[in-house]
Amino acid sequence: MRVLGIDPGTGRCGFGVVDKVGTSITPVNYGVIETYKDQSDLERLNIVYEGICELIAAYRPQFMGVETLYFNTNITTGIKVAQARGVILLAGYRQNIPIVPVTPLQVKQQMTGYGRAGKKQVIEMVKRLMGIHKNIDPDDAADALAIGLTAAYHVEHRQLYGGMK
Amino acid sequence: MRVLGIDPGTGRCGFGVVDKVGTSITPVNYGVIETYKDQSDLERLNIVYEGICELIAAYRPQFMGVETLYFNTNITTGIKVAQARGVILLAGYRQNIPIVPVTPLQVKQQMTGYGRAGKKQVIEMVKRLMGIHKNIDPDDAADALAIGLTAAYHVEHRQLYGGMK
Repeated sequence: MRVLGIDPGTGRCGFGVVDKVGTSITPVNYGVIETYKDQSDLERLNIVYEGICELIAAYRPQFMGVETLYFNTNITTGIKVAQARGVILLAGYRQNIPIVPVTPLQVKQQMTGYGRAGKKQVIEMVKRLMGIHKNIDPDDAADALAIGLTAAYHVEHRQLYGGMK
Repeated sequence: MRVLGIDPGTGRCGFGVVDKVGTSITPVNYGVIETYKDQSDLERLNIVYEGICELIAAYRPQFMGVETLYFNTNITTGIKVAQARGVILLAGYRQNIPIVPVTPLQVKQQMTGYGRAGKKQVIEMVKRLMGIHKNIDPDDAADALAIGLTAAYHVEHRQLYGGMK
């Protein structure tokens, strides 16, 4: 099963393509769709949209895992990330890729068995489970691999939700 | 000048097409793009996206006015509306329609001269300025007309912003 994991963002939108066959887990590619502050919000949304479309065309994932949002810090940033998540979902939907929403809590639990695990612990588990021996830079790419893998487990366990968050 | 005003939403996304030539203001069409609770969030985002594309194709506006968001009530609803606003902006951008963001405060000030005006006062002014003698149903459509007209004034006054909110 091939899953495209997405960590929604405007400045950096992490992506991770993961193949999971039984207990074998292979990271196919990972990185970020990057936009810059001198670009308008509109340009940045379009770059994210086109980036997702290109990833789908290049890797033909069977599912997309997209992390859900929670607002606990900056509300202005939160609105922008939610707008970006909107175009990410649209890109998947319009190309008939089923979308699996995963929460930050689910990612932590799936990857470390512990819902209050720190960011570093999750990244260490990504590297260990996927046999990646170098640092994954930036963190958003590692997060996206974790999101993709969590989505794969959720699909396998028939926990595919009816509605989207 | 023809402007398409949009009041972002998922359940009901208001639209109002306004022609403004000098002091003459004509409502060309108004209404809502409607989605339903039994549809997935993905379907609803796609309906909003396609609805905006159809309005642009039908009315060829020179500008789009899109209200900015503020979160003061339900955060879950807020995230969904922001996701919808993302696909609305994307639709305009991908069809080369310049987008004018207007804040709720700017709409109230433009329409009534008073930043703390109530919803009813704004709707009354929409009807008066546009010569609409029947009730505008639902309110979201009236709001969208006000947003479109405010955007038209802002463009005229060369207050077209460089960045997007």
